[in-house]
Amino acid sequence: MPRDLTRDFHDLLERGRDRQLRLAVTGLSRAGKTAFLTSLVDQLRHAGLEARLDLLPAAREGRLLGARRVEQQDLGVPRFPFDRALAALDDSPPRWPEPTRGISELRLSIRYRPRRPGWVGGDTRRLTLDLFDYPGEWLLDLPLLEHDFASWCRAQRFDGERAMLFADWQREVADLEPAQEVEESRLAEIAERYAEGLRAAREAGFSDLQPGRFLLPGELAGAPVLQFFPLPGLDAADPADLERLPPESLYATLARRFRHYQQYIVKPFYREHFRRFDRQIVLVDVLGALNAGPERFEDLSRALSRLMQSFDYGRRSLLSRLFAPRIDRLAIAATKADHVTPEQHARLTGLLEALLAEPLKDLRFADVPVRALSLASIRATEPREVDHRGKRQPALRGTTLEGEEALLFPGEVPERLPDADFWGRQGFAFTAFRPLPRDGGALPHIRLDAALDWLIGDKLT
Amino acid sequence: MPRDLTRDFHDLLERGRDRQLRLAVTGLSRAGKTAFLTSLVDQLRHAGLEARLDLLPAAREGRLLGARRVEQQDLGVPRFPFDRALAALDDSPPRWPEPTRGISELRLSIRYRPRRPGWVGGDTRRLTLDLFDYPGEWLLDLPLLEHDFASWCRAQRFDGERAMLFADWQREVADLEPAQEVEESRLAEIAERYAEGLRAAREAGFSDLQPGRFLLPGELAGAPVLQFFPLPGLDAADPADLERLPPESLYATLARRFRHYQQYIVKPFYREHFRRFDRQIVLVDVLGALNAGPERFEDLSRALSRLMQSFDYGRRSLLSRLFAPRIDRLAIAATKADHVTPEQHARLTGLLEALLAEPLKDLRFADVPVRALSLASIRATEPREVDHRGKRQPALRGTTLEGEEALLFPGEVPERLPDADFWGRQGFAFTAFRPLPRDGGALPHIRLDAALDWLIGDKLT
Repeated sequence: MPRDLTRDFHDLLERGRDRQLRLAVTGLSRAGKTAFLTSLVDQLRHAGLEARLDLLPAAREGRLLGARRVEQQDLGVPRFPFDRALAALDDSPPRWPEPTRGISELRLSIRYRPRRPGWVGGDTRRLTLDLFDYPGEWLLDLPLLEHDFASWCRAQRFDGERAMLFADWQREVADLEPAQEVEESRLAEIAERYAEGLRAAREAGFSDLQPGRFLLPGELAGAPVLQFFPLPGLDAADPADLERLPPESLYATLARRFRHYQQYIVKPFYREHFRRFDRQIVLVDVLGALNAGPERFEDLSRALSRLMQSFDYGRRSLLSRLFAPRIDRLAIAATKADHVTPEQHARLTGLLEALLAEPLKDLRFADVPVRALSLASIRATEPREVDHRGKRQPALRGTTLEGEEALLFPGEVPERLPDADFWGRQGFAFTAFRPLPRDGGALPHIRLDAALDWLIGDKLT
Repeated sequence: MPRDLTRDFHDLLERGRDRQLRLAVTGLSRAGKTAFLTSLVDQLRHAGLEARLDLLPAAREGRLLGARRVEQQDLGVPRFPFDRALAALDDSPPRWPEPTRGISELRLSIRYRPRRPGWVGGDTRRLTLDLFDYPGEWLLDLPLLEHDFASWCRAQRFDGERAMLFADWQREVADLEPAQEVEESRLAEIAERYAEGLRAAREAGFSDLQPGRFLLPGELAGAPVLQFFPLPGLDAADPADLERLPPESLYATLARRFRHYQQYIVKPFYREHFRRFDRQIVLVDVLGALNAGPERFEDLSRALSRLMQSFDYGRRSLLSRLFAPRIDRLAIAATKADHVTPEQHARLTGLLEALLAEPLKDLRFADVPVRALSLASIRATEPREVDHRGKRQPALRGTTLEGEEALLFPGEVPERLPDADFWGRQGFAFTAFRPLPRDGGALPHIRLDAALDWLIGDKLT
């Protein structure tokens, strides 16, 4: 495609001179992607003036002169709705911005003074920063590329609480035979029951859901490619027998749709977007999962291991073989750190690392530079101290989503993966707060500057 | 693309044996595309039993055995929601189906007995009929391919009642200079005012609206490619001067988006879908426009001339040069014929032919077989006769959308293009009716069988 060639060539030139960087922000839904991107853009726009970015050397040293939005390169990708997000935060009372759906993009042109002015280009330089925001759910589909339809069916599990959420679908699918012929409209109905199960599971706080695009169909709503589902009871079947079934059979029809999903839904995202990102940050709502109990927490852990496979650039990994990505730096952040008291922040980072222990090992082995941290993109609480039985105790002050002033101690974050004892004590009670009213300057945050330093700091020296 | 090659090859084989036909249904919004397709599928499914298809020889001669839905070929195109449409018609009270958005598809496998059984394949045969439904608004964008941005700007007119509908946008755009630099977010705002003008104009009954995709953005909502607008006041500008403006200038930015729209929005529809249709029917709501007054009627006429350019296969036409389409038969139908008394039907067809006189001449010159007719896809009224001043007079009986029983004479349809005299007399008062309750059999219709005969009859002999 001529467009891609030109674009790739231009990108190459710009990046060769260290003047362009493509940074992607992802996370499962409700992890805080929109808040993160909104705050990031806001901080850079206020850099040099009101923004507090002490952990970003270029800002601390007064060399960061500011940033402005310029036209993005991919005219066919929705622009990240920064103004709409800011308007929500400036509303009275302030509201959290609407979550984005699908991929969006925003380009900043950053002006800075290098540490040592070069002999060309005067004493200020520009960095073009392309920001992308996309649903982490799309990454959950990568492992699907390693399956054929039969092995994918066998890998799906509907036990525990999920059994109930998928009960309607399971009733309908129970009597189906791989060899039978099922009418188009009937297939669409059963597939809709399956999609309803996925939606119900997401509503109930589950994260490990496949296929991801069933949750955000967009213009593909009603297309056969989003109308398949796993066939239960294939364990005993001979793969060769299944392959021999006629094209009108249920098995062959679903397998055809599964392959189409792999080819025309999963792969294009990696090919057209993912492999072109230079750096990424993955946001994780650890506190939300902690609040939701052991089954959801376990599920988040599984979903994250799966999601992190997209960053495993080991030479033999599926990803490297298929798409040759080139990310040279990765950040993983536990968001909403302002929802626990400050002395818990180190524990929050520790818990995130424990949660991602296995994938982090793989990444280090594959020599992908990665950093874990905890942050609050937009701080919604003030730390306080209260007297409790004669002792000073840390607390948070904020306004709940329902508009009530609250002063509370949400509890201790476990430093390691929580055990039965922790869940038994129910040691954690997370309250959601609305954003603080903004007083003109940049949005208040916690350690967003640390994330910025890791993600773009080396390009501003 | 390997997919397209395989598909094309398979199509070619099937079509070579006269066993596959790709039939597209289009029309501007509210022309009745959903009702037409729903009824067409319903008639063919009931063929041989309850359906009344006397004008289709295969049905009249008892050779049409029936049709069933089978899996469509393009798994990534939404399936036409036939069941949902039928459920709306079977509701009590019956409702018109929800209109479709974008393109949709449905495949029927039709069984019939040929007039003379061949020496292979027994005495029944199959015809695979692929049905497509897409917005006629997309065709209004074809002429946009003949323009560059400057000439497109000069071709846009905002006079008469449109001046008012686009007033907000015109206020914002009036002081802009082609050479100035305009901030991204400001551009998005002005583009949104323009899109609001288009939406308001459509609501007010106008049809000739460009660019068509601004009205149904889908997943492109918020993308820069849908954020351009015509720049007024370019008449005096020297084209060479405009071309020399820097890439950040307003003119260059809008022109870039305009070109992207041509390349990545308009052309792909023609390349991937349009050029693969064998036959098409264009539905026109002549009565609705007649009801809306002279300015809307004039506008519909302009929109139709523009839309019909997509069917002008003359050797020098833009379409032939770009896409080499292969439609071998075209129908143009005035819909909702049941909303006038039966003796007016011939006049309705006459008026449609008058409205399309110029494009029809071009099509005949280009040797494209075309037929004009009037029909009601789903009949909503019963013809009656009433006594009026001692004379028998034709009338219609039906239930209005508000649920009132009505017996009325909507007026005479002018046989030729209406003149000032007609509009002065206000000779026509169209009432919208709700569908008749269905009593089990096929949907009642008027001359849908005639349309079927023209569009697929020759494949059933």
